[in-house]
Amino acid sequence: MPTYEATVSAPVNIACIKYWGKRNTSLILPTNSSLSVTLSQDHLRSTTTSSTSQEYAPGDRLWLNGREEEIVTGGRTQVCLAALRQWRKEVEEKDSAAPKMSEWPLRIASYNNFPTAAGLASSASGLAALVYSVSQLYALPQTPSQLSLIARQGSGSACRSLFGGFVAWEMGTRDDGSDSLAVQVADHGHWPEMHALICVVSDAKKGTSSTSGMQKTVATSSLLQHRIHHVVPARMEEISRAILARDFTTFASLTMQDSNQFHAVCMDTSPPIFYLNDVSRAIIAVVEELNRASLAQGKGMVAAYTFDAGPNAVLYALEENMHVVVHTINQFFPQTQDFPDPFGMLASPAGAGARPEGFNTSVVREGGWEKGAVSRLIHTRVGDGPRRLADEESLLTREGVPKTLA
Amino acid sequence: MPTYEATVSAPVNIACIKYWGKRNTSLILPTNSSLSVTLSQDHLRSTTTSSTSQEYAPGDRLWLNGREEEIVTGGRTQVCLAALRQWRKEVEEKDSAAPKMSEWPLRIASYNNFPTAAGLASSASGLAALVYSVSQLYALPQTPSQLSLIARQGSGSACRSLFGGFVAWEMGTRDDGSDSLAVQVADHGHWPEMHALICVVSDAKKGTSSTSGMQKTVATSSLLQHRIHHVVPARMEEISRAILARDFTTFASLTMQDSNQFHAVCMDTSPPIFYLNDVSRAIIAVVEELNRASLAQGKGMVAAYTFDAGPNAVLYALEENMHVVVHTINQFFPQTQDFPDPFGMLASPAGAGARPEGFNTSVVREGGWEKGAVSRLIHTRVGDGPRRLADEESLLTREGVPKTLA
Repeated sequence: MPTYEATVSAPVNIACIKYWGKRNTSLILPTNSSLSVTLSQDHLRSTTTSSTSQEYAPGDRLWLNGREEEIVTGGRTQVCLAALRQWRKEVEEKDSAAPKMSEWPLRIASYNNFPTAAGLASSASGLAALVYSVSQLYALPQTPSQLSLIARQGSGSACRSLFGGFVAWEMGTRDDGSDSLAVQVADHGHWPEMHALICVVSDAKKGTSSTSGMQKTVATSSLLQHRIHHVVPARMEEISRAILARDFTTFASLTMQDSNQFHAVCMDTSPPIFYLNDVSRAIIAVVEELNRASLAQGKGMVAAYTFDAGPNAVLYALEENMHVVVHTINQFFPQTQDFPDPFGMLASPAGAGARPEGFNTSVVREGGWEKGAVSRLIHTRVGDGPRRLADEESLLTREGVPKTLA
Repeated sequence: MPTYEATVSAPVNIACIKYWGKRNTSLILPTNSSLSVTLSQDHLRSTTTSSTSQEYAPGDRLWLNGREEEIVTGGRTQVCLAALRQWRKEVEEKDSAAPKMSEWPLRIASYNNFPTAAGLASSASGLAALVYSVSQLYALPQTPSQLSLIARQGSGSACRSLFGGFVAWEMGTRDDGSDSLAVQVADHGHWPEMHALICVVSDAKKGTSSTSGMQKTVATSSLLQHRIHHVVPARMEEISRAILARDFTTFASLTMQDSNQFHAVCMDTSPPIFYLNDVSRAIIAVVEELNRASLAQGKGMVAAYTFDAGPNAVLYALEENMHVVVHTINQFFPQTQDFPDPFGMLASPAGAGARPEGFNTSVVREGGWEKGAVSRLIHTRVGDGPRRLADEESLLTREGVPKTLA
């Protein structure tokens, strides 16, 4: 009997309008819509191979980064696989020639090309890759938006990783979650100049997990209710318009405001949740000063910062301004790890001299930060959605075990 | 011709429900009511002598901590003095025997017994002392609440320093500010066990001034509006009830929530305002853990933290629990300055051993904080309102110059 398989990669996404709070924790239905930029898989990706065969021993098996993970009954992975099998069943019912894969065991291996230490939400790209790979294996006719319904139940923000470009997760209103899905606002070709710089910030203490943190905010923050009902809906509209108009200053302004408001509602939680530390604050001060100085010269904003549930900054800037951002961060926050500099920013002749006139260096503490306060930089850009890869890229042997273990 | 004078002292107050935002910046009318604890003048006070004489050279003069300050026409001090003179005029109109002091020059010297570095709002105690000393000099019949109307126009939170104990600043609704005044919720004798520990936290960078910061929040934070209209009114009621019932756990819970929400709206400002630093966050973590462990044992909360527009913590605790707080802070945050320990906390036999069972020391970063992250501690308690002092305490010579300069 043949073995069927599909290998895909899926991207990381970083929200500009933040998801924080569930109205239904089992279906993962959010309290507000959110919007993200999909980052290029050339730099950051989860690669996943799913395979199935009638010959496999019973039971599904899953390996993450070479380590087998238990697929817990009723757990998030199993919920996703059950939903995908259900859709496969519909394919099989319509086409009697289609192999009855829905009844066969699955073998899935997934691998992230970025370290957990980078503080990126690997669950988003990982779950998107899992759902996309099985959907390819099963030759499902569903659209990415429909697949996002399943990815969402694996890990909320994973639903946004099923598209490239600029992606909205519409919160929906139905109780069954059937309208809580991802839609593409614009693809990556619409605004390819959108670059991102991830600044990995060291933190002595592990913060609150986002899963438990957001529900504490829902339970105790009075400000969250105002954010949900009165702030986010308008911001979703505004940032979508800014993206379509390629209006970086509006995009940046809304992105920074929403990051700050997300951390504000975390602080309004009892007990308060803090994800930003003094280094995060210092990065904010530098970006705000770059923008202030640039606006004072009648130009647009240079960059936007955004922070998820941790101290790492993601800075968005247009390609033409990114060398200023890289030089500035590099100067004030010397890293411990060499910067790979994939776009040749440090070689750029413009260099630090291109900082807007009037930039006030006193916003950074005297003497600058010690080496390693920012441990590493990752430079990437907006990118496309999940990719089907060639069979040679398979992570599994024909027997359905990870090649790294075989 | 005789010289008349009055010497007074006035206390510092620390808000539990925070004042942040003016609806009228010239009259200093707040966007929400606030509530504070008046701290004992045995430890922290502004002392002020006001004197007047027909013989003085024309023009009022003012010295703060031995340095002469210009009384700017139309400035805050002049506004207060003009209002006090108006009330003196009414006294003189009713009693023709009363000296016509309202027409004479004033000499005012004021002195704070705490360094500016302590990060306490010296303007509150200073303005309260100024207003109270002139009211005593002028033998005004007005009540402390009426005097608070004038102090408020000198420095908003100064109005709360005209009373001892637990003091509400009612925001009022009238456009002329005539109902925006301080009232006493309970005097210091109602709950004398209320102690306070000020933890002076070093900060490399000077933060945004509260005057400019609060108006940026009013202009840009959408969350502030929700706080003003929907959160603070209920909290004012609840904390007043908790004070009257001497319910420390409710008092502490509301105090911490309101401090956190104040800093949340600061963060929701564009650009964001940060007053807390990593040391402030660490103090929060320690207090939250003391409370968590105590509540887990079926006991009440141990302490409450509150932070104004800076990184310094003020911790409230009942006298019986303050030794645990002092020992804990002392252990995790070794100071550079000796702790005067006026209540003999470190000599207390209970000591650190009295920390609630189950206290998890891992909330503090490994190895603890470096010496001086908290530079000094000041232990005080709830105290009384402004005091009229004996003439021997006068800060001025008969010629109306500060004794320190004579």
